[in-house]
Amino acid sequence: MPAKHVSCALRRVFLLVIAALVVGYAAAQSTVTDVKVHSPGLEHNRLGDPADQPVSIVLPAAYAQDAQRRFPVLYFLHGYSDPTPRHDAAEFVRSALDRQIAAGAAQPFIVVLPNGLNKYLGAFYANSSATGNWDDYVTRDVVQYVDAHYRTLADPAHRIIAGHSMGGYGALTLAFRHPDVFGSVYAMSPCCTDLVADGGPSNSAWKVIPTLRAPEDVPAARYKGQFFVAADAAMDAALAPDPGNPLYGDPPFRLVNGQLRTDPEAFRRIASNMPANMVVPLLPNIAQLRAIVIEYGAQENFTHIVIGAQELSQRLSQAGISHTLEVFQGDHVDHLTERIADHLLPWVSAQMVPSNSRKTDSDGH
Amino acid sequence: MPAKHVSCALRRVFLLVIAALVVGYAAAQSTVTDVKVHSPGLEHNRLGDPADQPVSIVLPAAYAQDAQRRFPVLYFLHGYSDPTPRHDAAEFVRSALDRQIAAGAAQPFIVVLPNGLNKYLGAFYANSSATGNWDDYVTRDVVQYVDAHYRTLADPAHRIIAGHSMGGYGALTLAFRHPDVFGSVYAMSPCCTDLVADGGPSNSAWKVIPTLRAPEDVPAARYKGQFFVAADAAMDAALAPDPGNPLYGDPPFRLVNGQLRTDPEAFRRIASNMPANMVVPLLPNIAQLRAIVIEYGAQENFTHIVIGAQELSQRLSQAGISHTLEVFQGDHVDHLTERIADHLLPWVSAQMVPSNSRKTDSDGH
Amino acid sequence: MPAKHVSCALRRVFLLVIAALVVGYAAAQSTVTDVKVHSPGLEHNRLGDPADQPVSIVLPAAYAQDAQRRFPVLYFLHGYSDPTPRHDAAEFVRSALDRQIAAGAAQPFIVVLPNGLNKYLGAFYANSSATGNWDDYVTRDVVQYVDAHYRTLADPAHRIIAGHSMGGYGALTLAFRHPDVFGSVYAMSPCCTDLVADGGPSNSAWKVIPTLRAPEDVPAARYKGQFFVAADAAMDAALAPDPGNPLYGDPPFRLVNGQLRTDPEAFRRIASNMPANMVVPLLPNIAQLRAIVIEYGAQENFTHIVIGAQELSQRLSQAGISHTLEVFQGDHVDHLTERIADHLLPWVSAQMVPSNSRKTDSDGH
Amino acid sequence: MPAKHVSCALRRVFLLVIAALVVGYAAAQSTVTDVKVHSPGLEHNRLGDPADQPVSIVLPAAYAQDAQRRFPVLYFLHGYSDPTPRHDAAEFVRSALDRQIAAGAAQPFIVVLPNGLNKYLGAFYANSSATGNWDDYVTRDVVQYVDAHYRTLADPAHRIIAGHSMGGYGALTLAFRHPDVFGSVYAMSPCCTDLVADGGPSNSAWKVIPTLRAPEDVPAARYKGQFFVAADAAMDAALAPDPGNPLYGDPPFRLVNGQLRTDPEAFRRIASNMPANMVVPLLPNIAQLRAIVIEYGAQENFTHIVIGAQELSQRLSQAGISHTLEVFQGDHVDHLTERIADHLLPWVSAQMVPSNSRKTDSDGH
Repeated sequence: MPAKHVSCALRRVFLLVIAALVVGYAAAQSTVTDVKVHSPGLEHNRLGDPADQPVSIVLPAAYAQDAQRRFPVLYFLHGYSDPTPRHDAAEFVRSALDRQIAAGAAQPFIVVLPNGLNKYLGAFYANSSATGNWDDYVTRDVVQYVDAHYRTLADPAHRIIAGHSMGGYGALTLAFRHPDVFGSVYAMSPCCTDLVADGGPSNSAWKVIPTLRAPEDVPAARYKGQFFVAADAAMDAALAPDPGNPLYGDPPFRLVNGQLRTDPEAFRRIASNMPANMVVPLLPNIAQLRAIVIEYGAQENFTHIVIGAQELSQRLSQAGISHTLEVFQGDHVDHLTERIADHLLPWVSAQMVPSNSRKTDSDGH
Repeated sequence: MPAKHVSCALRRVFLLVIAALVVGYAAAQSTVTDVKVHSPGLEHNRLGDPADQPVSIVLPAAYAQDAQRRFPVLYFLHGYSDPTPRHDAAEFVRSALDRQIAAGAAQPFIVVLPNGLNKYLGAFYANSSATGNWDDYVTRDVVQYVDAHYRTLADPAHRIIAGHSMGGYGALTLAFRHPDVFGSVYAMSPCCTDLVADGGPSNSAWKVIPTLRAPEDVPAARYKGQFFVAADAAMDAALAPDPGNPLYGDPPFRLVNGQLRTDPEAFRRIASNMPANMVVPLLPNIAQLRAIVIEYGAQENFTHIVIGAQELSQRLSQAGISHTLEVFQGDHVDHLTERIADHLLPWVSAQMVPSNSRKTDSDGH
Repeated sequence: MPAKHVSCALRRVFLLVIAALVVGYAAAQSTVTDVKVHSPGLEHNRLGDPADQPVSIVLPAAYAQDAQRRFPVLYFLHGYSDPTPRHDAAEFVRSALDRQIAAGAAQPFIVVLPNGLNKYLGAFYANSSATGNWDDYVTRDVVQYVDAHYRTLADPAHRIIAGHSMGGYGALTLAFRHPDVFGSVYAMSPCCTDLVADGGPSNSAWKVIPTLRAPEDVPAARYKGQFFVAADAAMDAALAPDPGNPLYGDPPFRLVNGQLRTDPEAFRRIASNMPANMVVPLLPNIAQLRAIVIEYGAQENFTHIVIGAQELSQRLSQAGISHTLEVFQGDHVDHLTERIADHLLPWVSAQMVPSNSRKTDSDGH
Repeated sequence: MPAKHVSCALRRVFLLVIAALVVGYAAAQSTVTDVKVHSPGLEHNRLGDPADQPVSIVLPAAYAQDAQRRFPVLYFLHGYSDPTPRHDAAEFVRSALDRQIAAGAAQPFIVVLPNGLNKYLGAFYANSSATGNWDDYVTRDVVQYVDAHYRTLADPAHRIIAGHSMGGYGALTLAFRHPDVFGSVYAMSPCCTDLVADGGPSNSAWKVIPTLRAPEDVPAARYKGQFFVAADAAMDAALAPDPGNPLYGDPPFRLVNGQLRTDPEAFRRIASNMPANMVVPLLPNIAQLRAIVIEYGAQENFTHIVIGAQELSQRLSQAGISHTLEVFQGDHVDHLTERIADHLLPWVSAQMVPSNSRKTDSDGH
């Protein structure tokens, strides 16, 4: 066969391949699905938040292309008073994931975006007798729903939890409590990691909180620009619930003769739920995690986030737990979309795909 | 009356005063009493240590001089494998206290020296299902005995607990657990405050401990010069008791393929009992204490003591707890007697005498 | 001689003693003197502050009672934008010192209160090509004036430097630089010890400073309630002087695309002048100091003060320097007068009187 | 054309491709070249080490394949008393790099392995009046030699410096001093980062060093198993050179009355050369670096390495410098080859190849 035949044959092969690709892409685009998941533990919460909560699910194009294939899942938790609807956030993740897959920087996986916004604009993904069991909602109800309705790789090796700010807090605490559910955690600028600096008694927000009279004053404070007043009151209700308090939560600092003083019992309850202080009590859990990443910006706006991240790194190190602390150029939000697209998504892929040389064993697809 | 009469009269007054002083001193010297205190919680411990333990009690001269007067009490806990008999230690304290009282640097108080030496040469003053309830022995049995047999000011405002090295560890942990018993704590070079550095996995003692076959090998290691092997095995039995372990305690680090790795469960149990990690969980207790002093030498031999003391200071500070961290010129032991005589005893006096302007309320004498 | 004669004689003795005391006190009361001290290094500063600066001097009653006696001296530096005139501050110290001497809690010493208020409301006691040489003013000119005009014990063993907030910063830095002048330092809630938290890039004051157009805008900002804007601009001029900057100082953070970013050169200059960062470079000096005390309140309002104090303590400890870190119940100012009266003054006395067992050798009176 | 023709044609294509690959590989294999580089600053050093030092250079296969292409360069510094000859180390790197390139995990680059072994078994890559100018040797002489003899991308964006243990120390300090030479740094378990813990006064090696009489006693101590004695003496000569000392260097701790005390001047000189303490003074340099990675094992044997790495991370963070701290499962050496092959080499590639989205601008090939 002369050379031109070869070239002719090759041209055909190319055309066939391209056609197949075109057909494949036409038949299978990545998608966003919006559902509501019922969570029994959210019923009868004191804020009157519904027990059916919105969840958005990103399916990569490959999901429809191969009906036998099972996929790993990233659970991503949003931040306090984040105004982005679940669907819009999922659309961003979908397009970023498509881009990374196209660039060869990621293998396909599913992304699930649960809700963490309650009447207080932040549920901290915690079980609370005041605000309901948001930990259960994520780790039990949403995970069960996703595993029941989608072809997932339903084991901790193929579930990663991540989140930003309050979502970073949620990612760390849920991973620390449930290594049987989530195998790895990537916390982006995680908040609420220490009751110091802007989270400590020098923040005069603690003086305002006791002046609020009713639950509706909490989101109102946020909309008036009193960020810390609203966010801290929400945290109190999530981490130190108290039915006797008009806001349903006890602050860690209280006014004594016009001065803020530590309330030892409320401080104990809240601080016990902060990641650095969970390292020793939950070490048998934490030691099961495959990977822990904590990142924050070198220009982080919230000082307690910097301090809390460094403390968490130190205590993990002291307890012999491998992890990564990454400090990037940026502040609390200015590089968030870039960090998700260019760092989180490729990392999730590298963690969960079989070529990865980490602890991940055979994953069945 | 002419001048010489005045001088004569004055001379008589002087003589009378001196005579009174001489008689008083003759009738009332400071004393050391050695007793044994029975502690039900020490019965049937696995090491076979007796439930009757030696305690020495220093009574200041003023005790005998005024039969109505009640006195504050300092409880002083000795260190690991301290070879000094209780009586000899008490004799040192007695003479140092006499000296400080004579110099006007201290008011009289009682000093009690319980025992902390068991078959493992150190019980860490902890309740342990393996080694017995040494916390109960000090905080309940010895305190009850002293209050029953001596004219004490029997309230936390007038009980201070102090100690050196393992005794500093005991002082901190017993004060943190029992603010209803001890009102203040002075920890001298407290050991066992962190599982890092010489207390961490880089210390090859952890490789030797699993090679010990029987309890008697623990003190034997100490006498062979394997200090860390013996001390760490003693700590394991005190803080992570395990009847299934031949030494009755689980080490926080174990050999995995020839490498020391954290044992998450044993680490959790031991680290949870370290002072810095007790700050948040026991904050409601700690907030009741009137004063906390931690001191160590700038040339401290045990690195974990330096790190642990700094960590404890930071966490107390973060929790809003006032305290003093004092770093002196010296090492773990070279200035111990001087620190007790010139710093601890005057401080105890200043804390507990009525002229003191601190939280101390009426003290009844 | 019958008993009533003795009692009669004793009454006379008592009356004589009391008379002597009354005469003594009448002849010698403690006093406050206000002077101006010329400082050549303050001439021609860019803010136009005078080279003659007010200094108040407290002489204890004993100064007049014994014309041969020489006295130790405490130099006390006030804080940023402190509105208290030197004289009034000195009056407070005088009465507090009298009280402590009367109570037997202090021996008499001289107290000198230099000025640190310039047009920027704070000179940070630093030599600056912009604001003048305020370090020289204190350590050379005021000290020389005092030693020349008063019976002082003119050696470092008998000079202590103390101060509050910006004065605590000054006390630490001047002691670290001039151990040949000051033998000991007591820093009360020292500010400006770290460029983090409220002193870091999360403080939006750094965004306002570049909008100020002229030096008079700096104090104006203070009076408008922009505390950090004014204080930080003052610090910049003191620690990173720059004739090309309209405010004569370069901030450590600058706006880049609307974001605060570290200016490496200005940060280097300012941070190099912060106490924790001076420990290694000035260790040969610091090792000469007899005592270092750092204290702050457990409810300190300025987070960087807490962080900076803990860092300073750690670095001193790592360098083998003995010191005391005291954390008291209180905030930046609410216990200041009490801390001066009940803690600083007795401590100064204990440090400098001959009965003291510290390094102090014979002191000649 | 029937189907079998297509398949036939394809088979031919495959064969051709494979043949081309075989020929390519035959013509261009990766290689190791061993050279000697003369360094004027090493002449006349007091230890008599030669001014011509061995350097091994790894050229990737692509170097020979494309005679126009220029390549980035990784400089890798070995550790203290590392017995591996340069050539053997380079062989390991060569095979690891080939493997990563074959797996698509790395693009080709050059690797240069300078020498850091002197008579003291470690020169710390520092300029020293005692041991010679090893910083100059690496950053000037070796770099100039490589750029002169090989097709390199001769700018800091395409030079990365890395190293292990003493080499990690060298990598950090050389990058901090010479951002105009090296654009990024990856420090693996960097030693000599703090004079605490096993590097502090509790290490009795400092008591032995003054008993050594002559330079030849230093390596002899190493061979006798006195690791710290030899390594610390080598560090003293490198960082605190003193012609008057028989070992040519001053230790940071000296015996005073049988106790180790800080020598303030030697401590200052050595500690000033430790990475964490260089952050503030060298910030204008450090801010120019594109990336900084510090890694150590969660079971690191040398405690000061853990403490020093955490301190460095904190100070970089406080100064607004982005960086990564990675804590892996392992100790000082047990995962070294794996870390180099699977982490360092791919990271170097990602940092320096044009597809990388970091600061790297056009790189010319």
